[in-house]
Amino acid sequence: MITTAEILTRAKAAAPTLLTVSTEQKNQALEAMAFALLSQTDHILAENEKDMERARGHISDVMLDRLLLTKARIQGMADGILAVAKLPDPVGRILKETVRPDGLVIQKRAVPMGVIAIIYESRPNVTSDAAALCIKSGNGCVLRGGKEAFLSANAITQALQDGLSTAGLNPDLVQLIQDTTRQSSMELMTATGYVDLLIPRGGAGLIRACVENATVNCIETGTGICHVYVDKAADLDMALNIINNAKTSRPSVCNAEEVCVVHSAVAERFLPMLKTRLADERAAAGLTPVELKLDERAAQIIPGTPAGPQDFDTEFLDYILAVKVVDSVEEAISHISAHTTHHSEAIVTADRAAADLFVQTIDAAAVYVNSSTRFTDGGEFGLGCEMGISTQKLHARGPMGLEELTTYKYIIHGNGHVR
Amino acid sequence: MITTAEILTRAKAAAPTLLTVSTEQKNQALEAMAFALLSQTDHILAENEKDMERARGHISDVMLDRLLLTKARIQGMADGILAVAKLPDPVGRILKETVRPDGLVIQKRAVPMGVIAIIYESRPNVTSDAAALCIKSGNGCVLRGGKEAFLSANAITQALQDGLSTAGLNPDLVQLIQDTTRQSSMELMTATGYVDLLIPRGGAGLIRACVENATVNCIETGTGICHVYVDKAADLDMALNIINNAKTSRPSVCNAEEVCVVHSAVAERFLPMLKTRLADERAAAGLTPVELKLDERAAQIIPGTPAGPQDFDTEFLDYILAVKVVDSVEEAISHISAHTTHHSEAIVTADRAAADLFVQTIDAAAVYVNSSTRFTDGGEFGLGCEMGISTQKLHARGPMGLEELTTYKYIIHGNGHVR
Repeated sequence: MITTAEILTRAKAAAPTLLTVSTEQKNQALEAMAFALLSQTDHILAENEKDMERARGHISDVMLDRLLLTKARIQGMADGILAVAKLPDPVGRILKETVRPDGLVIQKRAVPMGVIAIIYESRPNVTSDAAALCIKSGNGCVLRGGKEAFLSANAITQALQDGLSTAGLNPDLVQLIQDTTRQSSMELMTATGYVDLLIPRGGAGLIRACVENATVNCIETGTGICHVYVDKAADLDMALNIINNAKTSRPSVCNAEEVCVVHSAVAERFLPMLKTRLADERAAAGLTPVELKLDERAAQIIPGTPAGPQDFDTEFLDYILAVKVVDSVEEAISHISAHTTHHSEAIVTADRAAADLFVQTIDAAAVYVNSSTRFTDGGEFGLGCEMGISTQKLHARGPMGLEELTTYKYIIHGNGHVR
Repeated sequence: MITTAEILTRAKAAAPTLLTVSTEQKNQALEAMAFALLSQTDHILAENEKDMERARGHISDVMLDRLLLTKARIQGMADGILAVAKLPDPVGRILKETVRPDGLVIQKRAVPMGVIAIIYESRPNVTSDAAALCIKSGNGCVLRGGKEAFLSANAITQALQDGLSTAGLNPDLVQLIQDTTRQSSMELMTATGYVDLLIPRGGAGLIRACVENATVNCIETGTGICHVYVDKAADLDMALNIINNAKTSRPSVCNAEEVCVVHSAVAERFLPMLKTRLADERAAAGLTPVELKLDERAAQIIPGTPAGPQDFDTEFLDYILAVKVVDSVEEAISHISAHTTHHSEAIVTADRAAADLFVQTIDAAAVYVNSSTRFTDGGEFGLGCEMGISTQKLHARGPMGLEELTTYKYIIHGNGHVR
């Protein structure tokens, strides 16, 4: 078995070879990677079946479905790679150019990070998505997937490496860590000089471990306790539609709503509407009703589960919504500020001043006025792709596309200039 | 004594108050800070004299000079604050605006980081520089200065706080940590939720401690083992001028040259020129001669000290230059890549292809063609100011000005939009 240290050494040696490769060559390599994935479909499905066999009975049905590959899903992965090939090259962009009074020309130009490491969990398609985004942005890619999906990810990685070789690029540009114990994650977190950027994609435990242990540059992603605040000046029908969408369209994702904050001036009218739409009508239609966890004031207006204090700090990722009543936009902002995960927060209001105050003072990657939090997504933002959603403030915030996988350097041309 | 935890709590509470303050108000506050500094000159000088008294005999003359304040230096600090007031406001810039096909308007807008903590050493003027840059960029500022300069920094901070109060802003926006033991640095490095960005400004030991221990976002700054490569196609007189400037104009700074790499085809002509200019002529003029530490091949051409292997990994910050002979631009790139601190690297050549290869493949914040590495500086780059020079790749690279002290958020306006 190749060691993690050896993989990192190879990745570090391979990454600079991409610096002198043209956009066209990178796109041809992506096409070859997609083609190799399709032509090795049978092998990948066979390896996936072994992963599925081992996992059955040990993980939930939802997790089993995430792990499962089919011909259609592999086709989808190949299509994803081809879509990345069509995106503009983020490398080489001139971000700024200054000519100094003495004639010195200073250019700020986008360049690759170097080696990007991604720690992820059981979805095998992350393997090809991440590899494609790294190659397009000129970076070497070290993948550390979940144990359950190891054989699938390994077969996918081999296909991608075959594609790279076919296109004349170094196959070490995309590698899968073979050790699936905690040890290898720790090695990546502390691989100073080898890993230029670490992106953990997974649950809160993984993110916390990275924040606490990483000595390499790391981007915090994902956790979202998203709030929708219904102001006293809200169009209540609009608010209801937005909350219905933010809560129920896909409760398991990080941009789903977890907490509804309602102004007391409209709570008596709005909360019964909320209960009818999210709980009663859904139950009547045979859909999972949303469980409402109510603070004391909300509980005086509609029936529901009493909310414990931890319910305002929980990412339910389920058909559960915490509800709180406040007396002003300032109180709403203060509650959200105390409980935000800095992901996505929304206000519904027709009052321009309330919206402006909310937008100015809420500290989150995405702040919404009169729309659903569910739009926080690379595709919806027009980035064409996504490597995760950053909830930190350094470097990248919100959905990370290709540009966020680059850094820059200053290139200075003189003619014997001295200072 | 106010504890570090209490200072952080106050800073976190104060920082959001800057979010709704206009550019004009921030500039007025900066003017008031400069005025307070000048009007409290006598008190500041008296406190500085106590610092000087304690330090005499314990630190070097160079360090004592760094610590010393004079009327002129305090005037310089006030002028620095007024210069920051004149710079454009980095907050609120619209970095991108997209209108999606469904009419959703997505704005990417520059916003403050929140609370910025700066750990620095004995120069008291960093106190006012850092505070001014933070206020202008809308951030709260927590300063942790060196023990030797504590009374000076404390007096300066009090003046700055008086200026903030006069202008109607919260004085907790600029605070000095009172505990000057290692404990307070560690508290800052791990103050998750309180410190949005940590900037260590100091020696390699401090930077390493931050990289290893920080759980908050941190920017590595400063260490510079800068190389100048003299290609076979170099104008040798130009190369000599550049190296003379890069090595001798200010050897103690991070953008000074430490290593000269010379192509073997010109080494026999160039190295004697180098020795004459940097060593012999300087000695004859009564200046400190540069000590040349030579690799084996260079030692066959000119006399000098034999270089040990560690000499190619040392930031001398002194009149010392390591010299190495190579056979090609590729070998030069490979040596520099193995020893770079990713700060500033230069090539001197008239060969466009060699310059392009160097620029493309050298991984540093600033890559120079035919000019001195000494230009890596916020002022020289036209940023108008500088909070340090980042040698990492995340967020900011090279000189950090006001824009680098901001992050961004997405602000999305809809009209009931759901996904």
